[in-house]
Amino acid sequence: MADNDTDDGQSDEPINFYFDFSSPYGYLAAHKIDDIARLYGRTVLWRPVLLGVIFKTTGAQPLLDVPIKGPYARRDIERTARFHGVPLEFPQVMPFPSIAAARAVYWVQDREPDQARNLSLALYDRAFAQGGDIRTADSVLEIANGIGIDAARLSEALNDPAVKERLKTENDAAMAAGVCGSPFFVVDGEPFWGADRLDHVERWLATGGW
Amino acid sequence: MADNDTDDGQSDEPINFYFDFSSPYGYLAAHKIDDIARLYGRTVLWRPVLLGVIFKTTGAQPLLDVPIKGPYARRDIERTARFHGVPLEFPQVMPFPSIAAARAVYWVQDREPDQARNLSLALYDRAFAQGGDIRTADSVLEIANGIGIDAARLSEALNDPAVKERLKTENDAAMAAGVCGSPFFVVDGEPFWGADRLDHVERWLATGGW
Repeated sequence: MADNDTDDGQSDEPINFYFDFSSPYGYLAAHKIDDIARLYGRTVLWRPVLLGVIFKTTGAQPLLDVPIKGPYARRDIERTARFHGVPLEFPQVMPFPSIAAARAVYWVQDREPDQARNLSLALYDRAFAQGGDIRTADSVLEIANGIGIDAARLSEALNDPAVKERLKTENDAAMAAGVCGSPFFVVDGEPFWGADRLDHVERWLATGGW
Repeated sequence: MADNDTDDGQSDEPINFYFDFSSPYGYLAAHKIDDIARLYGRTVLWRPVLLGVIFKTTGAQPLLDVPIKGPYARRDIERTARFHGVPLEFPQVMPFPSIAAARAVYWVQDREPDQARNLSLALYDRAFAQGGDIRTADSVLEIANGIGIDAARLSEALNDPAVKERLKTENDAAMAAGVCGSPFFVVDGEPFWGADRLDHVERWLATGGW
């Protein structure tokens, strides 16, 4: 039994949840992953990434900009949101730069891990439930302040070279772990890409793999 | 009530199932779509396409050739096959030219619609259940012959300019209908892309949309 296993043989490693704040499918998954984790006594590590950097390696274009696929994807996202009963209103600009939001989450995670999840959900909801703008540091600070995070300290952190480096390190590690899109999950070493792989994630948690 | 509706208000339009014989996710869907259609009293129209032509418009690369995504996709295809209990052995060359297979299916469809489905499944199984080669006209003829199709007449047809034109027309129509990958389904005008959208397809059939 590995050190990360509990006495009943179940792993207690967190589920790694990688996502870009600009990703609508990431938003949809963010509304599902906690419930799934809870069913199997697991926690979730919320790990924002920057898909723009990752796409330089994979050669992908932002989905909504691709001919034929773009219009389909928009329709599929709306249909999938209704399928799961998750509210959806697209922001005016997509994709959008999510670097301030991502830096904020890592800074919070190192101080109050539960708040990292709360901040991530609040940012996602502003962007995709309300169609709001989370591109600027000011918008991120306002949302953080709304859930009780010290906005003055966070504001300083967003300009701290160590915080900038932290996100870069996380993004590099995500790419090294094979993260090629958003959302992306790693469960006990097994990679799952897409909100439409949550059925696999759930069965993997239930069975330990197949 | 539209002309394509039956007396109970249910549509009797076939489910349009677009696929490239070179697509492993298309193969997986081919083993599921008939069962789903039958549950809702529907038929399936098997419509092979050539993704290579479609990808020229969307700018997509063959999935398995993409850095990071390619290795992930291979693992996901294997895991998805096990998830659904469908046998899988990759052919040696992927993607592979599927033009002879696609032409054969349309020629058969115009004469014996049920055999078009049987031939499609037999071709897919040779490629992805047995890891065989279906690239050449000879291999297609042998498989067709094995399920009782007149191979001599089919051999002539594969060189008939009208049959070549038929596939081109079908491929153009698929693109015009928004088909951007394989598998792709159109149910009563609603498009669904991916073997992982069969849950949406099924609910759409059950509810008429949401």
